[in-house]
Amino acid sequence: MIKPLQALNQSINSSVIVELKAGREFHGVLDGFDPHMNLVLKNAEELVNKESVRKVELTVIRGDNVVYISP
Amino acid sequence: MIKPLQALNQSINSSVIVELKAGREFHGVLDGFDPHMNLVLKNAEELVNKESVRKVELTVIRGDNVVYISP
Amino acid sequence: MIKPLQALNQSINSSVIVELKAGREFHGVLDGFDPHMNLVLKNAEELVNKESVRKVELTVIRGDNVVYISP
Amino acid sequence: MIKPLQALNQSINSSVIVELKAGREFHGVLDGFDPHMNLVLKNAEELVNKESVRKVELTVIRGDNVVYISP
Amino acid sequence: MIKPLQALNQSINSSVIVELKAGREFHGVLDGFDPHMNLVLKNAEELVNKESVRKVELTVIRGDNVVYISP
Amino acid sequence: MIKPLQALNQSINSSVIVELKAGREFHGVLDGFDPHMNLVLKNAEELVNKESVRKVELTVIRGDNVVYISP
Amino acid sequence: MIKPLQALNQSINSSVIVELKAGREFHGVLDGFDPHMNLVLKNAEELVNKESVRKVELTVIRGDNVVYISP
Repeated sequence: MIKPLQALNQSINSSVIVELKAGREFHGVLDGFDPHMNLVLKNAEELVNKESVRKVELTVIRGDNVVYISP
Repeated sequence: MIKPLQALNQSINSSVIVELKAGREFHGVLDGFDPHMNLVLKNAEELVNKESVRKVELTVIRGDNVVYISP
Repeated sequence: MIKPLQALNQSINSSVIVELKAGREFHGVLDGFDPHMNLVLKNAEELVNKESVRKVELTVIRGDNVVYISP
Repeated sequence: MIKPLQALNQSINSSVIVELKAGREFHGVLDGFDPHMNLVLKNAEELVNKESVRKVELTVIRGDNVVYISP
Repeated sequence: MIKPLQALNQSINSSVIVELKAGREFHGVLDGFDPHMNLVLKNAEELVNKESVRKVELTVIRGDNVVYISP
Repeated sequence: MIKPLQALNQSINSSVIVELKAGREFHGVLDGFDPHMNLVLKNAEELVNKESVRKVELTVIRGDNVVYISP
Repeated sequence: MIKPLQALNQSINSSVIVELKAGREFHGVLDGFDPHMNLVLKNAEELVNKESVRKVELTVIRGDNVVYISP
């Protein structure tokens, strides 16, 4: 058994897929998180309805938008 | 009588169906959870409107998206 | 006068109807709950828009989806 | 001046109209409540878009669905 | 400067307009409130999309439905 | 650097634009606020989809409706 | 690893893109924030569905509207 925040911790510095509500998705490197699942991603690409819409060096995502995070 | 989190605990390492809001569903092995019902699934398949859309080795689901979890 | 959680407690091991948001409903035996109204149902049938869609031996429902619970 | 929970307390054992979100309504006898406005109704009729859909001896309503309660 | 709950306190026993989410409105006399902005109105008229739909001697409104309250 | 509530404090007694969810807007003088961003406006005009719908001497806005406040 | 609020702190006095829910976006200079991700922006331009709708010297954004913040 592993706690959800421990699982996130194991993905630090790895590429992750972050699915958000309302058809939004980020692909990037997980650089940080906190207990609300607020996230910091590096070298991140934002997709809306599967189409790339923006590439950013860094982004801070508010946790309440997150559906899931997969390494 | 069993508490909801106890019931989840009995499903650790078992296959579960996780129904999420907005027509999303995961089938996988429950690897962990916390009191918010944040979940860790292993060997998980994601379905949207009953169609398979992605298979992942691991996923961390934010609890506020969960409708129910069934072994 | 009876507190809502006391009323739930009196339905333990009885058949209940659980109405959820978004047209979803469960019929089953109440096996447990907690103060958030997270629920455990046994021998439960799930209905969506009044049509049976799934039968499960056990399900853990996250409380924020609940509209009402009736014995 | 009267606090909202005091006003509810004065309706215990009286008939009330409970308006819920999403066009749902209950008419019944208020049997209990708690500070979240979780409610217990006796001899309750459920209406959806003003049409009667179900009569129940008892129902426990989760407070976050409530719009208002009127004696 | 006046705190929002102080401003409400000054409207006790006065006529107020209460705008709720989803096109619902109440006109009535403010009889009470609590820090969640749960409200008690006396001699209240409920309007939906500006049409009068119900008159009640008393109503208890759950605060999370409130958009604004104006004397 | 300035904290959000400090910035609000500097707008007390000044004209502000308050954008709310669902296409609603208020123009008025900020008379008070609390840490939830519940607001008190004086001499306020309410706009829905950019059309003026109501003028009020005072209004108490529940903070969860607020998108932003601009002097 | 970096905590989300630390990452925001590094963007103080820098230009940021703030994506909000419901198709709203701000471009401006981050002047402050708090743990809820309430934000203060200076010299900010508001866009709705990618079209510029308003320019403001200062705006205070309520954190629950935020999807992400990118420098």
